[in-house]
Amino acid sequence: MIDAAVVLLDWFGVAVFAVTGSLAASRKRMDIVGFVLLGTATGIGGGTIRDAVLGATPVFWVNSPGYLLACVVMSVAVFFLAHVPQSREALLLRFDAVGLALFTVLGADKALAIGAGPIPAVAMGLVTATFGGIVRDVLSGEIPAILSREIYATAALAGAMAFVLLNGTVVPRETAIVAGFVLTLAIRFGALRWSWSLPRYGQSSDL
Amino acid sequence: MIDAAVVLLDWFGVAVFAVTGSLAASRKRMDIVGFVLLGTATGIGGGTIRDAVLGATPVFWVNSPGYLLACVVMSVAVFFLAHVPQSREALLLRFDAVGLALFTVLGADKALAIGAGPIPAVAMGLVTATFGGIVRDVLSGEIPAILSREIYATAALAGAMAFVLLNGTVVPRETAIVAGFVLTLAIRFGALRWSWSLPRYGQSSDL
Amino acid sequence: MIDAAVVLLDWFGVAVFAVTGSLAASRKRMDIVGFVLLGTATGIGGGTIRDAVLGATPVFWVNSPGYLLACVVMSVAVFFLAHVPQSREALLLRFDAVGLALFTVLGADKALAIGAGPIPAVAMGLVTATFGGIVRDVLSGEIPAILSREIYATAALAGAMAFVLLNGTVVPRETAIVAGFVLTLAIRFGALRWSWSLPRYGQSSDL
Repeated sequence: MIDAAVVLLDWFGVAVFAVTGSLAASRKRMDIVGFVLLGTATGIGGGTIRDAVLGATPVFWVNSPGYLLACVVMSVAVFFLAHVPQSREALLLRFDAVGLALFTVLGADKALAIGAGPIPAVAMGLVTATFGGIVRDVLSGEIPAILSREIYATAALAGAMAFVLLNGTVVPRETAIVAGFVLTLAIRFGALRWSWSLPRYGQSSDL
Repeated sequence: MIDAAVVLLDWFGVAVFAVTGSLAASRKRMDIVGFVLLGTATGIGGGTIRDAVLGATPVFWVNSPGYLLACVVMSVAVFFLAHVPQSREALLLRFDAVGLALFTVLGADKALAIGAGPIPAVAMGLVTATFGGIVRDVLSGEIPAILSREIYATAALAGAMAFVLLNGTVVPRETAIVAGFVLTLAIRFGALRWSWSLPRYGQSSDL
Repeated sequence: MIDAAVVLLDWFGVAVFAVTGSLAASRKRMDIVGFVLLGTATGIGGGTIRDAVLGATPVFWVNSPGYLLACVVMSVAVFFLAHVPQSREALLLRFDAVGLALFTVLGADKALAIGAGPIPAVAMGLVTATFGGIVRDVLSGEIPAILSREIYATAALAGAMAFVLLNGTVVPRETAIVAGFVLTLAIRFGALRWSWSLPRYGQSSDL
């Protein structure tokens, strides 16, 4: 049952990331093909690098074309309806947090499944969750938000560590998945709600 | 015989893309090693990501070093003779269109050959045709032209879809290759000749 | 014994590249997680692309988590002590040259080990040595230094060619490794000491 929920949320995560990618396309006033390319690259980028690094090739979407279709549909929808997500930015950031939390746990879980140790598994969770957004920002000509923004990668890092630690103990895998997912989500929601951030390098010396 | 023509055109496509990469290097006034790096990354970038994603590793140029040599030769030639392609920009754009059309069909064909379904095959055609240019632009510090320029990825998308649709029916593979190639080329040539473009997001509201 | 030295130097190279990555993070005033992400991407980026292209997956750090740990430790150390490497820039550039020289030879050696020919092996040496720095610069929103800076990739190119040429003859592999390493290092050190550079495209016409 958890696996069914995970699959459902995985689709949700891909779709939400495709929306954030095509919203970046709307800010650059691209045409509809640009929306589809940027939306799709954002939606499937994290899982693609995960699979390429792990050697789980062909990567996931080659044999599950539905993911591509979902990205295309969402990107086209945003092209015609971008004013809707734009006026719902707070909601979208929360959806994005769900995608982040899910990709974190799924990335780490897939790494463990192919025999990676705990540290690489945490790294794969982080990469899976953040690489799509990095690709989106680089293709849009911006410094990746993940590197300069409020608590984002930090949430994924904490959630991936929680999942991997719990999964290595007597807790069943399902519980570890839920725990890692909830922790990532809670930290990211808290960061959005209370504008949490970590101190920047050289910050105190600016005063 | 079509396979011989395809191999010939494949070399042609790699060489043309290497020229566009080293012309970007000339605009940034790089040294000769910069020309070779940027020319080669542009020439083989698309096929490299295609093979990595499909798991067809080592990627194609590891066992066919001639592709690397062709990129190096073209890049060095551009370093000493860049005024020639610069003064032939119209011709070069048409050569580039041939590379685009060919990589589109070859990328989709290779995906089908390893058992991918039609939708991922279209995606692979698009990725193979456009990724080299994306790498060129990102390494040059520019927003990828593909995302903001006139009809380019659109031509590859249409050609890849035509190839995959036809290839799945009673038409022999050779005919489908020719059809996808010709359609991509025709759309791209038309876009160059008549400055076709798709409407941009928010364009009408600018008026 | 050479293999033990190579392993030791490999760790050294990863650690030094992680320092250059986290120094880039300090220039952008990132938080500690940004330091870790950028430091790690720079430290393991070259080897990751090498392994993905060669099909040597899972890539090296999935089964050797110590590399990740080394990157994290160095990045965290730089966050708290960045004034130390900053005031030692000359020293750091020399350490970076050691990493460059080593990754050049190791990348080419690994390519030969999986059966690649001499030209792709030289290319893999170059890619392994430079890709981490390219990732660092792209993620920091800068044009890759390798494409516009003084003799850097050129040193790696020369060293990789020397290694591959010597390795294909009667010279034992160990000697070829040392020769390629020393040549890369000597050229890079000379470039740092005497500000060597290659002529840029269009440079003479500027006069």
